[in-house]
Amino acid sequence: MNLVPAAPLDVLRTRTSEKWTEHPADVIPMFVAEMDYPLAEPIRAALHAAIDRGDTGYVSSSNPVFSAFRDFAGRRWSWDLANASFLSTADVSMGIVEILRAVTKPGDSVVLTEPVYAPFYDLVTEAGASALVIPLAETITPSGTIERRLDLDALEDAFRNGVRAFLLCNPHNPVGLVHPREDLETVARLAAEYSVTVVSDEIHAPLTQPGATFTPYLSVSDDARATGFAVHSASKAWNIAGLKCAVMVAQAEHTAAVLEAMPLEVSWRTGQFGVLASVAAYRDGGAWLDGVLASLAANFDLLDELLAEHLPGVTWTRPNASYLAWLDFRALGWGDNPAERILAEARVALSAGIDFGAHGAGYARMNLACAPGVLTDAVRRIARIPRQR
Amino acid sequence: MNLVPAAPLDVLRTRTSEKWTEHPADVIPMFVAEMDYPLAEPIRAALHAAIDRGDTGYVSSSNPVFSAFRDFAGRRWSWDLANASFLSTADVSMGIVEILRAVTKPGDSVVLTEPVYAPFYDLVTEAGASALVIPLAETITPSGTIERRLDLDALEDAFRNGVRAFLLCNPHNPVGLVHPREDLETVARLAAEYSVTVVSDEIHAPLTQPGATFTPYLSVSDDARATGFAVHSASKAWNIAGLKCAVMVAQAEHTAAVLEAMPLEVSWRTGQFGVLASVAAYRDGGAWLDGVLASLAANFDLLDELLAEHLPGVTWTRPNASYLAWLDFRALGWGDNPAERILAEARVALSAGIDFGAHGAGYARMNLACAPGVLTDAVRRIARIPRQR
Repeated sequence: MNLVPAAPLDVLRTRTSEKWTEHPADVIPMFVAEMDYPLAEPIRAALHAAIDRGDTGYVSSSNPVFSAFRDFAGRRWSWDLANASFLSTADVSMGIVEILRAVTKPGDSVVLTEPVYAPFYDLVTEAGASALVIPLAETITPSGTIERRLDLDALEDAFRNGVRAFLLCNPHNPVGLVHPREDLETVARLAAEYSVTVVSDEIHAPLTQPGATFTPYLSVSDDARATGFAVHSASKAWNIAGLKCAVMVAQAEHTAAVLEAMPLEVSWRTGQFGVLASVAAYRDGGAWLDGVLASLAANFDLLDELLAEHLPGVTWTRPNASYLAWLDFRALGWGDNPAERILAEARVALSAGIDFGAHGAGYARMNLACAPGVLTDAVRRIARIPRQR
Repeated sequence: MNLVPAAPLDVLRTRTSEKWTEHPADVIPMFVAEMDYPLAEPIRAALHAAIDRGDTGYVSSSNPVFSAFRDFAGRRWSWDLANASFLSTADVSMGIVEILRAVTKPGDSVVLTEPVYAPFYDLVTEAGASALVIPLAETITPSGTIERRLDLDALEDAFRNGVRAFLLCNPHNPVGLVHPREDLETVARLAAEYSVTVVSDEIHAPLTQPGATFTPYLSVSDDARATGFAVHSASKAWNIAGLKCAVMVAQAEHTAAVLEAMPLEVSWRTGQFGVLASVAAYRDGGAWLDGVLASLAANFDLLDELLAEHLPGVTWTRPNASYLAWLDFRALGWGDNPAERILAEARVALSAGIDFGAHGAGYARMNLACAPGVLTDAVRRIARIPRQR
């Protein structure tokens, strides 16, 4: 496997996106989910050619991203989408909000399982619903790390007590949890039993490591298809969040009708360059993606070594998907929001754990999609903060 | 003035946007608002460079489009935006919906003045309000063309009877009407008197012809600033609708508070390439824009000649802004939807007039942002449809 090396720092510093403009140049940015790799060559070629032909108008109503995604999902996950319905929009967040708007009434409850992607809380509010937060179940393994899973008993209680929807994070950000198939089957059975709609955010799915198996929620059973929606995007895995394209998926008649009934403008919000880049990614971006996954796995190994050497009190559970490390700083006594202190004293920008839910107190999320040298520098900087134990 | 020539047809046919994929290759596409010109050089350069540095992540929270737009508005329209508040989102439609969501309650009435941009009707519905439609006032000039203006008496009646908002199209699509300053002043006075919020869609403003003067709605008075919002985008004038960036503008404390209170995700939906292209357009795209305006003026002259020679029953009023011709086919007896017959028999795709409101019956909208040869071919094709009079 050829690793994909990160772009040089002097190139990265010329990027104008959130990761490279939020903090001054003395800060190592490891917060927002942008990757430091150069764009995949098929995406570069597709976008350069689109500029040259001036192809910057409205997305075609015969949107080519659907067939490209369908073929990718078939090849990569054996997910049969031959009879699926699709609708595109600007991003996964917008897709989630529009689905929740369609299936909830004002004040309905939507379950979130924390710690979870911080904007989920806002999306539920934006849709006019309220969040019911259930923590992930945690088990301490013999080696001392934490293993997380959905708390199926707590979910059943919530479903029984009348929640309207469950916003599933599959794989689960920020902990990199690839849900076991049997858990998803149980969710689907419960959803059908209690008439709960499941919205499965699968944006991190292409970033599943070779040792793990991503299971598309809708693929697990008729119950899942009857009660669920999936939302996908190439934005996270190929680092094209700024180009604006996500795909909503339905595989039952009445869920397809929900997509069909959405306001026309929802799909006009899709970015044309998002479509072109996503098509290139799904069709021809597999080799690049596999290289990125190998580069990330190498960084996971490196983080293990660096923590053991420089920050032995900090623990984490190696993710099975995505490039985000959920670091437990609680043993260091740095309070509920260690990211604040780390930014101030080490000049490393992590995401604050508390933004992901109350169970994130004492944690911080670190973005590992960077050069090994950057990761090494960051851990060493953090390790120089005086320990108070 | 250097004209900007359209791209060659063989290049245009390789574009994958809506204009070039909705119909088979024997159809001349003159419907959706995409232009046939190549991208402005500063935009091409900005986007090529962004691809090369992999700058496809999230839009920066210190979004550079605001200062670029502010400077452009100052230079082009003497609009002082020094103390304005801005919020970006994916497109003007999304901005309109979010503002209407914020200022209306379900079932509130929003005034539209028809014939008007067809999606306006959907946007009001999407925001949970209902549309109250008031026709533009029409006067027949001595030369037989129709002059249109806002019907200020009818607007006052509606405002007095409790509408909550007025969605103003400024300049007005599809008729290319640049509203006289005094009409906007009256709207602002009435809006303040009856507590009506005015949302001014100013997407066509940069396409105002040199002989006319575009007046930013918020610039006309304190009443306008106290009751209004404007929504701008470089998308129409520089043909970058697919890149997804629009700017909402507020110039009073409580309207700024409305933007401030919007869900966080609204501005994350902005496209990074939309920002980069818009900054290039506003800062360095003025010469290209002036060339396009001259090319369009030449096409307006050409259409006058072509209609006189080939389709003498078809009339129009030369637009003061934009590149859209609102063609009156009623004298030809081709029914309420001449666009349907024109597509079937002449293989020219126009926008159906009836989609713009009941007063669009017998009309069709023609997109003139094309090569003169294409326009000539289209009118000749239409002229070959047998006349039944």
